[in-house]
Amino acid sequence: MSELSLEQKASLTSGSSTWDSTAVEGVRAVTFTDGPHGIRRQERRDGDALGLTHSVPATCFPPAVALGASFDAGLVRRVGAALAREAAALGADVVLGPGVNIKRSPLCGRNFEYFSEDPHLTGVLGAALVDGIQSLGVGACVKHFAVNNQEHDRMRVSADVDERTLREIYLPAFEKIVTEARPYAVMCSYNKINGVYASQNRWLLTELLRGEWGFDGLVVSDWGAVNDRVEALRAGLDLEMPPSRTDDEIVAAVRAGRLDEADVTRAADRMRALVRRVDRRERFDGWDVDAHHELAREAARGAAVLLKNDGVLPLDPGASQRVAVVGELARTPRYQGHGSSHVVPTRLDDAWTALQAAGTAATLDFAAGYRLDGVPDAGLRAEAVAAAEVADVTLLFLGLPEEAESEGFDRTTLDLPADQIALLRAVAEVCPRVIAVLANGGVVSVAEWRDAAAAVLEGWLLGQAGGAAVADLLFGAHSPSGRLAETIPLRLADVPSYLHFPGADGHVVYGEGRYVGYRHHDTLDTEVAYPFGHGLTYTTFEYSDLAVTETGQNAWTVELTVANTGERAAAEVVQLYTAFAEDVPSRPRHELRGFRKVFLAPGEAQRVTFALTGRDLAWWSTGRGAWAVSAGRFTVEIGASSRDIRLTAELTTPGDGHLPTLTGMSTLGEWLDHPIGGPLLRARLATDAPDLAGERTSPMMLALQRGVPLVKFRTFGVPLGLAAVNELVEAAARAAETL
Amino acid sequence: MSELSLEQKASLTSGSSTWDSTAVEGVRAVTFTDGPHGIRRQERRDGDALGLTHSVPATCFPPAVALGASFDAGLVRRVGAALAREAAALGADVVLGPGVNIKRSPLCGRNFEYFSEDPHLTGVLGAALVDGIQSLGVGACVKHFAVNNQEHDRMRVSADVDERTLREIYLPAFEKIVTEARPYAVMCSYNKINGVYASQNRWLLTELLRGEWGFDGLVVSDWGAVNDRVEALRAGLDLEMPPSRTDDEIVAAVRAGRLDEADVTRAADRMRALVRRVDRRERFDGWDVDAHHELAREAARGAAVLLKNDGVLPLDPGASQRVAVVGELARTPRYQGHGSSHVVPTRLDDAWTALQAAGTAATLDFAAGYRLDGVPDAGLRAEAVAAAEVADVTLLFLGLPEEAESEGFDRTTLDLPADQIALLRAVAEVCPRVIAVLANGGVVSVAEWRDAAAAVLEGWLLGQAGGAAVADLLFGAHSPSGRLAETIPLRLADVPSYLHFPGADGHVVYGEGRYVGYRHHDTLDTEVAYPFGHGLTYTTFEYSDLAVTETGQNAWTVELTVANTGERAAAEVVQLYTAFAEDVPSRPRHELRGFRKVFLAPGEAQRVTFALTGRDLAWWSTGRGAWAVSAGRFTVEIGASSRDIRLTAELTTPGDGHLPTLTGMSTLGEWLDHPIGGPLLRARLATDAPDLAGERTSPMMLALQRGVPLVKFRTFGVPLGLAAVNELVEAAARAAETL
Repeated sequence: MSELSLEQKASLTSGSSTWDSTAVEGVRAVTFTDGPHGIRRQERRDGDALGLTHSVPATCFPPAVALGASFDAGLVRRVGAALAREAAALGADVVLGPGVNIKRSPLCGRNFEYFSEDPHLTGVLGAALVDGIQSLGVGACVKHFAVNNQEHDRMRVSADVDERTLREIYLPAFEKIVTEARPYAVMCSYNKINGVYASQNRWLLTELLRGEWGFDGLVVSDWGAVNDRVEALRAGLDLEMPPSRTDDEIVAAVRAGRLDEADVTRAADRMRALVRRVDRRERFDGWDVDAHHELAREAARGAAVLLKNDGVLPLDPGASQRVAVVGELARTPRYQGHGSSHVVPTRLDDAWTALQAAGTAATLDFAAGYRLDGVPDAGLRAEAVAAAEVADVTLLFLGLPEEAESEGFDRTTLDLPADQIALLRAVAEVCPRVIAVLANGGVVSVAEWRDAAAAVLEGWLLGQAGGAAVADLLFGAHSPSGRLAETIPLRLADVPSYLHFPGADGHVVYGEGRYVGYRHHDTLDTEVAYPFGHGLTYTTFEYSDLAVTETGQNAWTVELTVANTGERAAAEVVQLYTAFAEDVPSRPRHELRGFRKVFLAPGEAQRVTFALTGRDLAWWSTGRGAWAVSAGRFTVEIGASSRDIRLTAELTTPGDGHLPTLTGMSTLGEWLDHPIGGPLLRARLATDAPDLAGERTSPMMLALQRGVPLVKFRTFGVPLGLAAVNELVEAAARAAETL
Repeated sequence: MSELSLEQKASLTSGSSTWDSTAVEGVRAVTFTDGPHGIRRQERRDGDALGLTHSVPATCFPPAVALGASFDAGLVRRVGAALAREAAALGADVVLGPGVNIKRSPLCGRNFEYFSEDPHLTGVLGAALVDGIQSLGVGACVKHFAVNNQEHDRMRVSADVDERTLREIYLPAFEKIVTEARPYAVMCSYNKINGVYASQNRWLLTELLRGEWGFDGLVVSDWGAVNDRVEALRAGLDLEMPPSRTDDEIVAAVRAGRLDEADVTRAADRMRALVRRVDRRERFDGWDVDAHHELAREAARGAAVLLKNDGVLPLDPGASQRVAVVGELARTPRYQGHGSSHVVPTRLDDAWTALQAAGTAATLDFAAGYRLDGVPDAGLRAEAVAAAEVADVTLLFLGLPEEAESEGFDRTTLDLPADQIALLRAVAEVCPRVIAVLANGGVVSVAEWRDAAAAVLEGWLLGQAGGAAVADLLFGAHSPSGRLAETIPLRLADVPSYLHFPGADGHVVYGEGRYVGYRHHDTLDTEVAYPFGHGLTYTTFEYSDLAVTETGQNAWTVELTVANTGERAAAEVVQLYTAFAEDVPSRPRHELRGFRKVFLAPGEAQRVTFALTGRDLAWWSTGRGAWAVSAGRFTVEIGASSRDIRLTAELTTPGDGHLPTLTGMSTLGEWLDHPIGGPLLRARLATDAPDLAGERTSPMMLALQRGVPLVKFRTFGVPLGLAAVNELVEAAARAAETL
């Protein structure tokens, strides 16, 4: 880089337009594009970052909320490759996605862009999307790094999170993706983390991301996330987007000695490295619009979750029954959310058209039922009730209006519009077989109305082919195979972050800590509407022959057989949770550590294998600043949901072998339990202080004594002086060295 | 102080023995004594701080758990005066109490030494005890400052608490006591607060305690809480107890320039000021042992809480019925907890003796029923069942064994011993009128067995006269008048701190934040066994004529009438909660802001008056670093418990008049809502950016725009540049100055 001037290097650290980095002598500009469930390529260089103005048509795949529910890494990888092809065909080098923030609250306005409440599921699917995108040499840009779990005050709020929660919940998906899928870029978030803007957070962008995880790509700001470019460059941010036109200030800061030129050179080097990477991407003139639409349809089919079914589904395509299709959303689908991810689709399926085209023997009638703007319309409702009254089955399409969810603000309720619920009740009174089909990017509450429906199909936002996919599922051409990537609570107040979300006064305290989603509900054994991992199919599955085999030091293979014991081809999502059979410092009841989507024909069985490592049993020790594996017994749970565990087995780990360093501030209990310190201390006490943890010490007194640091006993009149404690500490240190 | 040498000043900053400060030329030693529900005066100078060795007999009043349930500040004040008299008679200058930590979890092993889960109740009763003690010139020492809400790892753990929670929950009781009752001393706690030992916490001991609250007394360490004397002196700790014999290190630190001599001088000055204060205390040779025992009995009567009564209570003293008195605890009472507060009583009433001496017409039989050590004993149980079988009524004394609760460790369960529950069920099968009388320092669960009892009297730990007090209540000589100072949850997992308590790895995260006790349960509307403030009597009360009168700027008087509409004299505890009628940043459902215990004869009525101020409606703004009163409507609730609100009225506050300073990082919404900034911005937008918050902006887009800081719009392509924003900020600042 020595051939570039300081001015040139500075200009490499900010963009030249909304979507392009700056070209300098010998270094071309890199073009970014919004995503990531479709390409939002804006041809105008002064485009906008909020999805407001025109973009070129591209396939609108199901957003992340739906891909998350697919639990299907292979599918997500294929979607990623299709995205890359479209991006390349449209002249973009880097796709701004995947979004892998954890769904801390169902109210987060941008949840439709995220996968799950679970870090493992999020990490696996995020890595798959990155793999797919980068398989054609197009770059992926993982976002929003980090702890960006709400829209409210997102550009200022400090997410106040304890370190263990960060490490166990909010960072692991990023860690997995960075270390396994090696994305070209990471996008820092707008918010502060524990008081420091992500864009200026040296610990986050440099120590953790590069130091611990070995990230070698580019860190780009979320669009407009930089507040202080000098601080940002120093912290490890490489590229400011869109440009604030302040490159001269960077040059001036270096000249004035307020910024080390090496910080600018490093960022510019990384920008040049990105150019070298994307220069190797494949080139395309276009793509097969039909094939991509078909892939979008397949993805949508894999994402819808059948929450409830009293047997009414699947509908028999050969039966000459009368089917009322009710709901404006059947005709005017909601298939994606608002904001920077908003795609102009290449085409758009609606369910009403798709159901008519499905070639069934049914007689179909349509009634709008309600207005999308939520204004009650008695005429529409009466028309719908009349249609349902003469129908054998009513397909009732319900969902959130467009205005309810978007980047930029959060929801304040989980409820569907009141007039839609009223319509459901009215329809259910005249037609006993009502099938509710939902369209919503964030979770909606179902507990108060689900009894009125014979079946409920949660369709999320399913992208441009969602209408056809829903028709495929309702008439049984395919079995539903989506699973809940987030808990559906009974009520908003049951959400663990309820009392803390979205904070106030510039701070949001992550008080629920690690107990997000099912980690909360399952640990407290609280009732939920539908648990994490739940989803029905048109067949039945049996689990058997669980075996856990130790394959090395803190390494195991878990194997089991899953069989389709029903009449229809379908997919099961086999879920592996680890639980803690013994007392380990405050752990969730269990945690997802593996999942596999298995497609099985009727009667078919398959052996499923998982690998487990010490990390899967580990917890983050703030004291050690490291992952810790406690010795003990753990339960491996195999289930069809977090509340439907079918098989369990135990394993035992010797722990990570970590031997704590004993000091005078180590407690009596820590000394006594220590393989080196215990014998040393006991010998000393036998002569000096026989009443301390002695034979005649009562259990109550022993409990009290065990919690006291060794050095404190002298202040309570115990004959164990400072000199004696220091001797013990030194003896223990010497003995530890010789191990 | 200039006449004292550095060495002399240094020696004033630590003790000379377990209980005495150091005397130097012209400055006598001050003698401390453990408390505070009785005087634990140890005559040996090398006594112990854990209640292990002998102390001189003194009246054992009910511990704070019971005084808290009395809701009776006048009673607590009288107990304080009696404590002071005994302390003075025993040669002590300062009583180490009251303990005013908030009951964050019912598992805290030392909860019997604390008053309540509510800061207001704790503050009022703590101030009353200080008032009483200091009324005779004896010093009180408020403890444990601060955030010492568990015993587990108490000497090292960092209580990680957000600032708003500190200010609204864990500090207000200290604040009220320090500012209103002006205690001579404050004792710092062992633990860390957000990573800094309380004993070395300059913010806590100096900026907050002295700077904000105006404390002018002495800060003494909890016994053994000093880890670094230099840091402690610098932070504002005045006296290390007991001495670590390191005064020479202090001298050396000053000589080496590592410690400012002024820090030593200041601490020594404060020690000398304490000596001057306690020199003025009254002198006594002894006290009226009978009168103090009688006061202890009155206090115990006022503290027991009648949780449930199907009508069996009170027992008719004139009825010649057969009463089985079952339970070893009736004969061998548990009346205080273990640790530094443990008092050697002057005498000890047990319920069995007191019931026999009560002069009733009943025939009394005793059966031990169970062993105190929890070892099941079929013979004892059979004997008790046989006694109950022939009885008209069974008084069943249940409770926690001594080993279950103590300073130094926490409980792990809320359950009573299993064999006691089994005994209750066995007895209830043969005797339909079982009255359970409980003895426990921390809350025990009742939900799983209360149906088997016709009445439940929660007796806590009632001090040396508890046995007689219980007899007074059971036979109706007095009506029960205690109220729950802490919620009784249905199960341990319902406790808001359950997932976080007691932490691990050196940290305990206060994740539930401000939602402690009823603030959690009432906000989430979760079921509890018995709510905060609950307690039955032998009469009925009616509430009427609530009036709220504005008496000044953010000042109101609340008046109501409470009448005894039943047949017996009794006391009602009138409770005032404030609730928020409008949307205020994340507030608990309601909060206790006043209470009054009113003793009323049958037919008697009394007008009760409360004063409310802005502070009663305020929340701590972390952003402003100040209490904030938001303008709006509030509800004043008058109730007999937090779940039994009898009267409500509304008041409206104009708020505190705070006008936020507008900056470029203020959001569009903040600008638009600002009385100065709104018009300025609107005028600018009308010409420069009519699409921003304009007439044609959709509600969804407006919601999105309102959350964006003004300075960020330019990065989204809006024609509102940095220069324009800076002009607006300056114009707003100029206009604010002229207000």
